Amino acid sequence: MKKSLSVIAMLAAVVTGVVSLEGRAEAQELSNFNFSGARKIVSPEINSDKTTFRLQANYATIVNLVGAWMDNPWGPGVPMTKGNDGVWELTIDTPSPEIYFYSFIVDGVVMGDPLNVMVQRDGTRYLSMLIVPGERTENYYEAKRHGTVSYRWYNSPILGIDRRLTVYTPYGYEDSANRNRKYPVLYLLHGAGGDEEAWTSMGRAAQILDNLIEKGQAVPMIVVMPNGNPGQMAAKTLGLPESELDWRVLENRTRYVSSLCEEIVPFIEKNYRVAAKPSSRAIAGLSMGGGHTIAASLMYPEMFDYICPLSAAGEATPEQVAALKKAGVKLYFLACGTTDFLYDTSVKLDAVLTEQGLDHVFYKSDGGHVWSNWRLYLNTFAPMLFK
Amino acid sequence: MKKSLSVIAMLAAVVTGVVSLEGRAEAQELSNFNFSGARKIVSPEINSDKTTFRLQANYATIVNLVGAWMDNPWGPGVPMTKGNDGVWELTIDTPSPEIYFYSFIVDGVVMGDPLNVMVQRDGTRYLSMLIVPGERTENYYEAKRHGTVSYRWYNSPILGIDRRLTVYTPYGYEDSANRNRKYPVLYLLHGAGGDEEAWTSMGRAAQILDNLIEKGQAVPMIVVMPNGNPGQMAAKTLGLPESELDWRVLENRTRYVSSLCEEIVPFIEKNYRVAAKPSSRAIAGLSMGGGHTIAASLMYPEMFDYICPLSAAGEATPEQVAALKKAGVKLYFLACGTTDFLYDTSVKLDAVLTEQGLDHVFYKSDGGHVWSNWRLYLNTFAPMLFK
Repeated sequence: MKKSLSVIAMLAAVVTGVVSLEGRAEAQELSNFNFSGARKIVSPEINSDKTTFRLQANYATIVNLVGAWMDNPWGPGVPMTKGNDGVWELTIDTPSPEIYFYSFIVDGVVMGDPLNVMVQRDGTRYLSMLIVPGERTENYYEAKRHGTVSYRWYNSPILGIDRRLTVYTPYGYEDSANRNRKYPVLYLLHGAGGDEEAWTSMGRAAQILDNLIEKGQAVPMIVVMPNGNPGQMAAKTLGLPESELDWRVLENRTRYVSSLCEEIVPFIEKNYRVAAKPSSRAIAGLSMGGGHTIAASLMYPEMFDYICPLSAAGEATPEQVAALKKAGVKLYFLACGTTDFLYDTSVKLDAVLTEQGLDHVFYKSDGGHVWSNWRLYLNTFAPMLFK
Repeated sequence: MKKSLSVIAMLAAVVTGVVSLEGRAEAQELSNFNFSGARKIVSPEINSDKTTFRLQANYATIVNLVGAWMDNPWGPGVPMTKGNDGVWELTIDTPSPEIYFYSFIVDGVVMGDPLNVMVQRDGTRYLSMLIVPGERTENYYEAKRHGTVSYRWYNSPILGIDRRLTVYTPYGYEDSANRNRKYPVLYLLHGAGGDEEAWTSMGRAAQILDNLIEKGQAVPMIVVMPNGNPGQMAAKTLGLPESELDWRVLENRTRYVSSLCEEIVPFIEKNYRVAAKPSSRAIAGLSMGGGHTIAASLMYPEMFDYICPLSAAGEATPEQVAALKKAGVKLYFLACGTTDFLYDTSVKLDAVLTEQGLDHVFYKSDGGHVWSNWRLYLNTFAPMLFK
């Protein structure tokens, strides 16, 4: 064993800068090392009540910071100040505990923070991530014990394509000690700008479930996160061709909901150790996915005992609600931000549910059509499921 | 069902621009839509022999393009030209078929291409991705049938932490028709700058295996991609604390290799339907992972029948090779680029293997210590495994 030390030592010499590789193609696998010995710049840096952002930009004329804690998180943002070393800096009051996306605007061009490896993908945009610790975000950090997150493919004859979905199985699911145990399933749907990775990236769904289960606040459950855009095989990051099935056309939405209930649910119930009964099935979704949630509950009233439309784009008639009530519902959790542009829609749905005497929760939060709300909602309703 | 159309129509009105949401926090889930109706800019755009890159940057002074097809892929790059509409553009001769990373440099600051959703993560860097089609890249695109990619956690008493690894199970593995079938396993290790996502992101391992298996060129196999940095629980993107176990210290490397062979291999053999015998185990790794591959083959000569060090940082003594030969090897596939800074190390290893009469392949390619080579090597040796 001793002899192979010499090569390790040689590689160590390379990565510690004795041999300079900077600027060479060779550097590809060595990108995590600081060759130059220059001052190590940190961004973002949270010091309890103050947070500092930094960007090395020697030749830029104007650098602004924009972030989700601002009234307008997309711009124009707040100017940063250039130091003598070419490092632009801005210190702000640390915003209240939450996950915020932010960007720099360098001479008018929006970019991520190159010093921050924590990134969320919101549709086609990559956004740098700032987590401010606190009670609100406690369950958004990694738990001690982790479930498994899998990207699986299934065939959809209804949509005519193979499609990808994300499956979270809780800690212990794969243990041989649990091999006879069956689990309930939450079908968790994204909005029109998202895909099958939205809830694990922007939504922190795996972290939230890991934490809730670890604390004994939620029942161990499987979470299935499909792709709700009927023309997509998978997230755009895979570069696959897409069909013309626009989600805004009712017929396509109906086809997608049929695929969800007639293809995805059976696929999961065949491939996982799940209890295949309404009391072990929940459905929740945001925005377009809230519309899918409502539509699924009305088209298949016997299928789900737990129904959670979040900032939902969808309605129900009194007759439909009456039929749903008859089929039986254990939890109807309706949630919306009071400044959401779909708030009135939720108020209307609440009125119909009340009028028809269908027991439900109308959970109102501050804010609008944003992920900070959807994370909060998941963290709030997941403990109510399957109990 | 009819009534809920109205809300869909309303949301449709929003996203098609009748109601402008641009610049409002509400826009978060609607980020994929082009509200402004402005000219749709495309980047990158491959037109057979020419490829064009574009960036909207009205106020920038200098914008350069840098890419992996250049002699120096990290800078300073080639100047782009500003059009009257503020869109900077550069058309180049399409480079030969390969996956290239590239960036823009806007007034001295390196950034990704905001119009390109295809991104690879190389350690702590996010890089825009250009795939040029051709024979070389055929297996880097999505196949028709897909295996499953899972992120799982296991406990490592040797390293004292829970750790994450990536597991690829081939198409059909989960089918009930295959429930009695056992699969061989390839343990595929990354380099010092990588983590458990390096081979699926930079390395296109899932696509390569999907394609090779679909074409009948490779045997259906499980691929296990652990995290080879002994102090890391998981990729830095998860923000977890790291211990001080520097991989450059031989003792830590030895501990990691022990963990691999005494913890990960048993974990996989307990949790997956695998044939637990040397002829169904392969090990391959690049750079530091090549060192791990060599060390594992020497510390546990009975464990793997297939051994593939790639651009490897590792050596073996004549006595060690003699012991390995005695234990039996079905394939020893040594690969290195002829301009790799570790090429001489591979030449030395080749000489020892030859001297000891251990049958092996020494696969030499053009180029250096780069992912284009490691993808090529995987695509080349995977068909030779388990046959």
